[in-house]
Amino acid sequence: MKIITLLTDFGTKDPYAGVMKGVILSINPDATIVDITHEVDPQDIREGAFIIEEYYRYFPEGTIHLCVVDPTVGSARRPLIVTKDSHFFVGPDNGLFTLLYRGDCEAYVIENPDFILREISATFHGRDIFAPAAAHLSTGFHPSAFGRMVHDAARFADIFPVIEGNRLAGEVVRFDRFGNAITNIHIDILERFVQDRPFTVSISGMSFTSIHKSYYENDYTCLIGSSGYLEFGYYMGNLREKKGVVKGKAVTVIPA
Amino acid sequence: MKIITLLTDFGTKDPYAGVMKGVILSINPDATIVDITHEVDPQDIREGAFIIEEYYRYFPEGTIHLCVVDPTVGSARRPLIVTKDSHFFVGPDNGLFTLLYRGDCEAYVIENPDFILREISATFHGRDIFAPAAAHLSTGFHPSAFGRMVHDAARFADIFPVIEGNRLAGEVVRFDRFGNAITNIHIDILERFVQDRPFTVSISGMSFTSIHKSYYENDYTCLIGSSGYLEFGYYMGNLREKKGVVKGKAVTVIPA
Amino acid sequence: MKIITLLTDFGTKDPYAGVMKGVILSINPDATIVDITHEVDPQDIREGAFIIEEYYRYFPEGTIHLCVVDPTVGSARRPLIVTKDSHFFVGPDNGLFTLLYRGDCEAYVIENPDFILREISATFHGRDIFAPAAAHLSTGFHPSAFGRMVHDAARFADIFPVIEGNRLAGEVVRFDRFGNAITNIHIDILERFVQDRPFTVSISGMSFTSIHKSYYENDYTCLIGSSGYLEFGYYMGNLREKKGVVKGKAVTVIPA
Repeated sequence: MKIITLLTDFGTKDPYAGVMKGVILSINPDATIVDITHEVDPQDIREGAFIIEEYYRYFPEGTIHLCVVDPTVGSARRPLIVTKDSHFFVGPDNGLFTLLYRGDCEAYVIENPDFILREISATFHGRDIFAPAAAHLSTGFHPSAFGRMVHDAARFADIFPVIEGNRLAGEVVRFDRFGNAITNIHIDILERFVQDRPFTVSISGMSFTSIHKSYYENDYTCLIGSSGYLEFGYYMGNLREKKGVVKGKAVTVIPA
Repeated sequence: MKIITLLTDFGTKDPYAGVMKGVILSINPDATIVDITHEVDPQDIREGAFIIEEYYRYFPEGTIHLCVVDPTVGSARRPLIVTKDSHFFVGPDNGLFTLLYRGDCEAYVIENPDFILREISATFHGRDIFAPAAAHLSTGFHPSAFGRMVHDAARFADIFPVIEGNRLAGEVVRFDRFGNAITNIHIDILERFVQDRPFTVSISGMSFTSIHKSYYENDYTCLIGSSGYLEFGYYMGNLREKKGVVKGKAVTVIPA
Repeated sequence: MKIITLLTDFGTKDPYAGVMKGVILSINPDATIVDITHEVDPQDIREGAFIIEEYYRYFPEGTIHLCVVDPTVGSARRPLIVTKDSHFFVGPDNGLFTLLYRGDCEAYVIENPDFILREISATFHGRDIFAPAAAHLSTGFHPSAFGRMVHDAARFADIFPVIEGNRLAGEVVRFDRFGNAITNIHIDILERFVQDRPFTVSISGMSFTSIHKSYYENDYTCLIGSSGYLEFGYYMGNLREKKGVVKGKAVTVIPA
């Protein structure tokens, strides 16, 4: 319980992530801090939710994941510790942990003043609440020491693909650095929907009747990305720029 | 004394920060290296000066802050170790540590050849002088072992806000990732100036007669940022782009 | 053998580098992970090759350098461990290690299933093969435990400057953050070619008859960068933007 990962939308220019690291190391000098990303699109909680689900499982059990995408910092939204699969997640109760709630998990409000900074600003709970809580957690406290368990954590109702008539309807939820468009359609959902029928996947005027295995197989590719989600790419180029695909763009799967 | 933080304007693409990490770990394999930022605007010493003051105090006493924004590398500007509040700062004597000099501190020139690389390039003192000095400092040497104390460290004379007639005149010194415009007007200076009088804050044709508490209170906000400086924001958007505010833009506070 | 550096073209936004860190720490919780860069231009193996050669020698002997620029992931290109100068390099056999092969080195294919993840995706060998191999290497295994030695590692035949008639012909291979244009002409090659003759260096309509010592000596500078390569800069500005220089741009050295 000494690895603390960081996911934020703070960017890498400002000192905010650095300040959180200082707060953590002041409380637990033995913590191993691991940057995941500070480049979640500003205030895009949904993108953060998908990214968290992609990396956490690759860390050892007991890892603490400090996640701060927090556009309503200073409002009444609660600070949370969520536990799942022997991992710990610390961050705001604004839907950021929506994808975790699909399985068994517990959520605790951070309200014990011993575990947060004495003065709480209205603009930087990453520093004042979340980083101290993560650091104290890494010294061995149980999440229940931080506050009461809650069962009404905030979640996005519309973050998953839906079946509309004979089609599976999803959307692009993020782009990777190469401009590949990653959707919210997981291979498990896709396979359950199409079963052994042939099918057509459509996005932005493109159609695919089969799933590629890797990016170099075709100019335009439709494949299952390394995290299990359907994604679209353009070999040695940038699909986002080439085709003007945007976040939220509809993706449909229709059986033949 | 084993935490070494890094602030540079090297960017995250080039290997220069990585090279400094290699030099540090070759001298002290037990050092804990913490990236603060490598995205100070290229050669913007003043921006670096404000960022340093924002994060250092959140680290434990004894932390070494390696700070390299060094456009005149290769000239006669001296390499320094500055000590303040039981923190250590290693970097060029070009004004980068201006804000530290407001309180008690000591400055030492790095001139002992035992503590720097044997060959000194004209273009990369971060690697050849500052990283080795920081690493040796982290093994327990006192700053006085590196060279003589000096009392004429370089500083920016015009970096702080001034009172001009009945107005407090400051400026925008940097932008955060969200496009918020951060000024050089600290809450302490503001409160001392306005006392209990009502006042108007103006920037770029916008006026505010009160200070907001958080970003979501209004479309355009004027608030005290998490580090105590007056800043301006645009909720769920980017003030810098929206209003074309630039660095150095005048900010005035006028009592009613 | 517990320091593992990371060089990739994954960018800092996506969780891919973070996932590799998780895989490493799951296998060796004591590994010290050091980010070099995740900003190699997407799929630019040649740029990666030059960057690797710039930083590795500054790390302690025994350091493991995990390098992933891998546009043909999923094809038959082999995964390799290369050893040189008591350093270890883990990555794809696609030319990325070309510059290392100039001196004594050994290359081993990673093929022992005990040292890679059980399921190998077609798109993310950084996670499934390279990170696990680097982590196992850091626990003390010899490279020969991973697979057979090979002598036909892939390399770029045209990555070095050539002598054409009376001229030395090289090219721009990358840009640093400041827009300085870095070439493939190393000082050793330059000196061997010009010996004690005067010479003219030309690029993009600019000519230089002497090598500057540092960036502030002239508006436009031609100097030997901190890693020993000829480079071009524009003081307090960006040469790349100012002159429209692009990667691959010809650079010639002609003796008088």
